[in-house]
Amino acid sequence: MRIPICEVTPDSERAEVAGWVHEVRDLGGLTFFLIRDRTGIIQVTIVKKKAPAAVLEAAKAVSRESVVRVAGTVKAIDKAPGGRELTPETFEIVAPCASPLPLDVVEKVPADLDTRLDARFLDVRKPRVAAVFKVRSTVTTAAYEFFTQRGFYNITSPKIVAAATEGGTELFPIAYFEKEAFLNQSPQLYKQMMMAAGFEKVFEIGPIFRAEEHNTVRHLNEATSIDIEVSFADHNDVMKTLEDLVAFQYAAVADRCADAIADLGIEFEVPKTPFPRLPYAEAIEIAARKIEEPIAYGDDLSTPAERAIGEEMGEHYFVVDWPSAIRPYYAMPYENDPSISKSFDMMHPRMELSSGAQRVHQHDLLVRQIEAKGLNPDSFEFYLQPFAYGMPPHAGWGLGMERLVMTMLGLQNIREAVLFPRDRHRVVP
Amino acid sequence: MRIPICEVTPDSERAEVAGWVHEVRDLGGLTFFLIRDRTGIIQVTIVKKKAPAAVLEAAKAVSRESVVRVAGTVKAIDKAPGGRELTPETFEIVAPCASPLPLDVVEKVPADLDTRLDARFLDVRKPRVAAVFKVRSTVTTAAYEFFTQRGFYNITSPKIVAAATEGGTELFPIAYFEKEAFLNQSPQLYKQMMMAAGFEKVFEIGPIFRAEEHNTVRHLNEATSIDIEVSFADHNDVMKTLEDLVAFQYAAVADRCADAIADLGIEFEVPKTPFPRLPYAEAIEIAARKIEEPIAYGDDLSTPAERAIGEEMGEHYFVVDWPSAIRPYYAMPYENDPSISKSFDMMHPRMELSSGAQRVHQHDLLVRQIEAKGLNPDSFEFYLQPFAYGMPPHAGWGLGMERLVMTMLGLQNIREAVLFPRDRHRVVP
Repeated sequence: MRIPICEVTPDSERAEVAGWVHEVRDLGGLTFFLIRDRTGIIQVTIVKKKAPAAVLEAAKAVSRESVVRVAGTVKAIDKAPGGRELTPETFEIVAPCASPLPLDVVEKVPADLDTRLDARFLDVRKPRVAAVFKVRSTVTTAAYEFFTQRGFYNITSPKIVAAATEGGTELFPIAYFEKEAFLNQSPQLYKQMMMAAGFEKVFEIGPIFRAEEHNTVRHLNEATSIDIEVSFADHNDVMKTLEDLVAFQYAAVADRCADAIADLGIEFEVPKTPFPRLPYAEAIEIAARKIEEPIAYGDDLSTPAERAIGEEMGEHYFVVDWPSAIRPYYAMPYENDPSISKSFDMMHPRMELSSGAQRVHQHDLLVRQIEAKGLNPDSFEFYLQPFAYGMPPHAGWGLGMERLVMTMLGLQNIREAVLFPRDRHRVVP
Repeated sequence: MRIPICEVTPDSERAEVAGWVHEVRDLGGLTFFLIRDRTGIIQVTIVKKKAPAAVLEAAKAVSRESVVRVAGTVKAIDKAPGGRELTPETFEIVAPCASPLPLDVVEKVPADLDTRLDARFLDVRKPRVAAVFKVRSTVTTAAYEFFTQRGFYNITSPKIVAAATEGGTELFPIAYFEKEAFLNQSPQLYKQMMMAAGFEKVFEIGPIFRAEEHNTVRHLNEATSIDIEVSFADHNDVMKTLEDLVAFQYAAVADRCADAIADLGIEFEVPKTPFPRLPYAEAIEIAARKIEEPIAYGDDLSTPAERAIGEEMGEHYFVVDWPSAIRPYYAMPYENDPSISKSFDMMHPRMELSSGAQRVHQHDLLVRQIEAKGLNPDSFEFYLQPFAYGMPPHAGWGLGMERLVMTMLGLQNIREAVLFPRDRHRVVP
């Protein structure tokens, strides 16, 4: 009966493990194998004079990164990983590995990102790379826990849609039978419709698609978005939910992914809540003081501006009270000064992670705001209809999963946070 | 401070609630409102002689399905829903509802499915319809719990892909910059690649897309699939995981969705495990005996065949040991009789819910099986590559979320299990 390698201890008397041949060192009379599964690494030691003939034969034939199954006796030994080694009575080659490998799993030869992504199944065998996806898995499952505990309903909105969320740009068209359709950019309109439906608190974690042409280290054409929408709530309420979620996700990773954090060799700290609230006007002042290029009230935050403000803040923070002119039509203007909106971005010192707002819930105001953005309300008919039939006040946000993982783990390229990234030049594997 | 309606008890002295005007009965000196939120319904009683003028004015002006916020004193009263009523001191119209409604929320006028789906935000206000999505939310979050408890990693595979899983049919093409791409039919190839990557136990719950032209009550063009893949496991191991999951999901619904089950007015029973294993050959015999149309060994199970066998079985069951000829190329043939495969379908008495198998993990056998299906191995290059570099034995399945919810709740049309269904004729709303 196979057990996970992490469960083999110096006190185990016998063990059967299965995994990949991570390294082989042949010292003549003695061969050391390191066998790796997703839980750890164990040393398998073969003394040529003592080992059964079948074990010797398999050990001689096996290549690195083959899958093997090994059973035998366990002995405590100081120098081996985990303080124990396995002396095999049986050694079976379960699945051989061809050579040469298209990618070196022990990273003696560094590879560029494209080569790594081309052979992603090998790249992800590196404990340091696998660690990213163990963390991402925990970040995702922790979000489900968090929202379930707080009484949110999980919803599934369609990914094939007939209309754009924010107008007609950056859409991937689909040939959908006889109709024109697109991949959805955001569940925005659907989660708002669920507020009209009376669901009150909803979340969705799913794919979004943006046909952005630029290729940067922080954009993807297919990404995962964590989205919520809450009725009878304002921007302040959902900012609190957002910082609580992020702190909960960090704490879950700290708690459940100690091995992965160790493999990554990073400092890991759970951010303290509440995150500071920085008014947009002040953010612009900081940027204007610190960056060379001109920036003024009414401008979006450029990448250098984000970086400069992030340096000054030094922790997660919110930029609040954005000018209505540079926010989407669905952001609620302040009653006493409609030129400013009840909207926010949640920032990591390195970059924006999330965008949200209290939404406009009044039908006629929404129509006026759509028109003010130069869009045609007729294209939003299915979306506008619910606002005439009892739409409660509501607020929400979208949080980028990949940017969250990227900033959490200090990754340099957002593609490092996706198993099979999609960008302008890559749809394979 | 607003509280959920379900938290107002006959013992509450005061309460503030917000929700939709479900019904209004004006008896002259007395007006009864039923106010609905997602947790329940409360009676709000206005005695015209006693109520404040502002309350009377709002109560007179408000239309059904408007959003209101009401605060006042609570009194125990036998005849009202929940045994209590609210006498308002304040009554605020938060969001008015236009009339006439495109759809009747209290269902005095029955509507056909298309009308309902066109105004889905109103349709879902019906407690009986909302109940379906409360259950679906629990079915989803319970799955995350189940897999997390069992040490599965959550993965996210790409939805935009360059190749088909099962050959070139039933794909939606996308205009992806300068390239040809498609919407993915299934995470099959990606979850198998994660076995080569050493992830051992993975799950994904996400959208799948099939350009099937036929319009039936049990097919969708965009659906949600619950997928797993497990290394060092065979078909029997993952069948056990599957029946355990389904029983866990039913138990979670029984435990957490009593109100929704009551709203639906259905009998609800958690299925007992293990589910019976019915060999394909015996299933064909049952069908041949019970249905009129000819059916023989080697045929797929037609809808009438599934129904006839389901009637005989009367509970969830597995059909096992399918002929290799009618299963996908990646299903593992039995060593002693390669004409039969280690594959299974998991059935509800009404229909198939899941399909799975131990997979072929040997590179050369896989190439032969792809060729035997008339497919070209060159089109599967990115998929085949991992099989040459240490691919462990593995098994897995995909489970249709909508069919699971549909059969769990006795829904007649699969569209009832999706908020915004996509079929040949529908991409809006």
